[in-house]
Amino acid sequence: MAIKSVENFYSEKAKDMVASEVKDLLEAAKSEDIISLAGGLPHPRTFPSDLVKNISCKILEEKGAETLQYGTTMGFKGLREEIAKRYRNKFNTDIEPDSIMITAGSQQGLFLIGRAFLESGDDLVVEAPTYLAALTAFENFSPNYIEVPLDEDGMKIDILKQKLENGINPKFVYTVPTFQNPAGVTMEEENRRRLMELSRKYDFLVIEDGPYNELRYKGERINPIISYDNEKRTIFLGTFSKILAPGFRLGWIMGDRRFLEKLEVIKQSLDICSNVFSQHIAYEYMKTGKIDEQIKKIIRFYEPKQQVLLESLEDYMPDNVDWTTPEGGMFSWVTLPENIDAKAMLNEALEEGVAYVSGHAFYATSPVKNSLRLNFTFVEEEEIREGVRKLAKVVENRLAS
Amino acid sequence: MAIKSVENFYSEKAKDMVASEVKDLLEAAKSEDIISLAGGLPHPRTFPSDLVKNISCKILEEKGAETLQYGTTMGFKGLREEIAKRYRNKFNTDIEPDSIMITAGSQQGLFLIGRAFLESGDDLVVEAPTYLAALTAFENFSPNYIEVPLDEDGMKIDILKQKLENGINPKFVYTVPTFQNPAGVTMEEENRRRLMELSRKYDFLVIEDGPYNELRYKGERINPIISYDNEKRTIFLGTFSKILAPGFRLGWIMGDRRFLEKLEVIKQSLDICSNVFSQHIAYEYMKTGKIDEQIKKIIRFYEPKQQVLLESLEDYMPDNVDWTTPEGGMFSWVTLPENIDAKAMLNEALEEGVAYVSGHAFYATSPVKNSLRLNFTFVEEEEIREGVRKLAKVVENRLAS
Repeated sequence: MAIKSVENFYSEKAKDMVASEVKDLLEAAKSEDIISLAGGLPHPRTFPSDLVKNISCKILEEKGAETLQYGTTMGFKGLREEIAKRYRNKFNTDIEPDSIMITAGSQQGLFLIGRAFLESGDDLVVEAPTYLAALTAFENFSPNYIEVPLDEDGMKIDILKQKLENGINPKFVYTVPTFQNPAGVTMEEENRRRLMELSRKYDFLVIEDGPYNELRYKGERINPIISYDNEKRTIFLGTFSKILAPGFRLGWIMGDRRFLEKLEVIKQSLDICSNVFSQHIAYEYMKTGKIDEQIKKIIRFYEPKQQVLLESLEDYMPDNVDWTTPEGGMFSWVTLPENIDAKAMLNEALEEGVAYVSGHAFYATSPVKNSLRLNFTFVEEEEIREGVRKLAKVVENRLAS
Repeated sequence: MAIKSVENFYSEKAKDMVASEVKDLLEAAKSEDIISLAGGLPHPRTFPSDLVKNISCKILEEKGAETLQYGTTMGFKGLREEIAKRYRNKFNTDIEPDSIMITAGSQQGLFLIGRAFLESGDDLVVEAPTYLAALTAFENFSPNYIEVPLDEDGMKIDILKQKLENGINPKFVYTVPTFQNPAGVTMEEENRRRLMELSRKYDFLVIEDGPYNELRYKGERINPIISYDNEKRTIFLGTFSKILAPGFRLGWIMGDRRFLEKLEVIKQSLDICSNVFSQHIAYEYMKTGKIDEQIKKIIRFYEPKQQVLLESLEDYMPDNVDWTTPEGGMFSWVTLPENIDAKAMLNEALEEGVAYVSGHAFYATSPVKNSLRLNFTFVEEEEIREGVRKLAKVVENRLAS
């Protein structure tokens, strides 16, 4: 006889945690008849399998057992040095290897940040819309979400300022400032400076999530927020998922050494250390400079896809539909006429043979119902075009009904 | 100007979390002049580097990108099937692949279990002594620890029974029943049955941590507790750290599918999925049967080391010192005369040139001060002998003073 009710065993928090509906959608969108612009996966053709093979052989021959043993919780020193070097040379960010910890993807970074800083009910500023899986991580700590809307220049800093003046008291502001997920927009330089000013005045931290920083297809490079920070109030989350391969589950946290010491203690209780073998692979990848060639290839692969998405939107969408025109990343954000509920429209889209993620999934508290996210990295160019054509047809049907 | 006080930013729980003193000890014990019987690491000569190299090449050639992409949160199906098969054939445990989830080592399993079940203040039964890193994981959830002592036959079930009769109300009992860390002892079959009976009567779960199950050097195999469970009250934690290599950070949880569904949602918020590349390596390792040859090699490598440890203790220790004589695993547990505090004695031991972990680290609430843990897997046989000789000298000095 099995246990009748499993619910009674759960903690209150665990009772609240249920599978995201996006998961079911992504499952449904796997059908061969559906063009999925819903996912958020990098394209497998951007993964350097041959290179990983060569590196794997090399490190096992040269270092052998060292790459298979437990490692330190902070992560492999060589890899942390390479990351520090890259951020110094490429992103004008002055950070010591001792201020970098390797994590199991940036998802673990988000969880660690939540664990370290959030008390139940704490004010937490997020963008509206924001990265879905960050909400999943932060939900573990029951924060009081404060949403600040975006425009094409990123988070609306005026609105943040107003909310701070009105007395919100966040431990940190969470932002994906460059090629945001889901909206694709980038926080302009002036806003980065203003955000840092506010962080000093109102004594909060900035959690900068930067998974797409290296995926710029046009326009001028903009440095991460952390490079504008002379008070070490910014904690930056990076990942190898978009510049090497997500299957390694490797990311990093960088920031004030004192915060890192606390995050290290917490990480130790989660998994002792990150995958050591994969850390050595990532180290060789950076050390030998292969990373630069590879990122160029990734950019050459994605740039035309993005072009096709934006052109197709232009070609097919009715006049009263808007979308963001990002200079990099993996997504564009579409705003439909106000009377269309993108969530309600999804079934029609699936019937027509195209999938997207409706915008409501990306809001912490107050969804904007007429919005949706389109991904352009995972499908072929012709499919993107066909998918947008189908989606436009569904929108037109809605408008006509 | 940097932030003056970082403490103010932390959650109450994070403020409490500080680095374990054992970490500093292990760092100190790395000195070349010290024979360290303190660690808990597998020996690097037991890691099959050549095999991992061959498998890495094979999977990258044959499956390529699939092994580098994101995977499901539950883990690679093929690997879960191989684990299910092995536990069915070898450990008499009937479990479906859908009731197995891959984790980042068993450490992540421990954290997930804590998250799913523990409310602050909940009664939690642990062995005394118990696995140190389990306490580190559970500490995140502030349980009320109830200690049940061990003898050579594992957890003293009579004492557990008494405590249950007296009204403790645990969600689960945590045990390392086979070649326990730190004590090396194994719960006898009759006690496994009695524990399951009590779990039914008092409606609690059993969390069975089984990292050393495959490392038996002598005696008869004993099946895991989960194989005695016809109510699916047991959740079993396994790991590849001792039967392949810890650097992959791969473990698994198996139990009632309904619990697994909840644990899956929680894991998703922690790291989305476990390292996919390493999962494919572990899959090939099991699928091709190399695992059996390899485990035989590991056993042949450790068995004489254990023998040397036990013989040296016999040869050198004064009469009033006791120790456990495990049939497998990585540790033996030493009980000194009652008036010796093993923690206070540690400095003398380090000066003499030998390190151990004093017993107090392994108790949730009430340390037995005259106890210590010795590891025999990581050092060479001659060093084990020499280390025990030195340790015996330190004990004799204490007794004489």
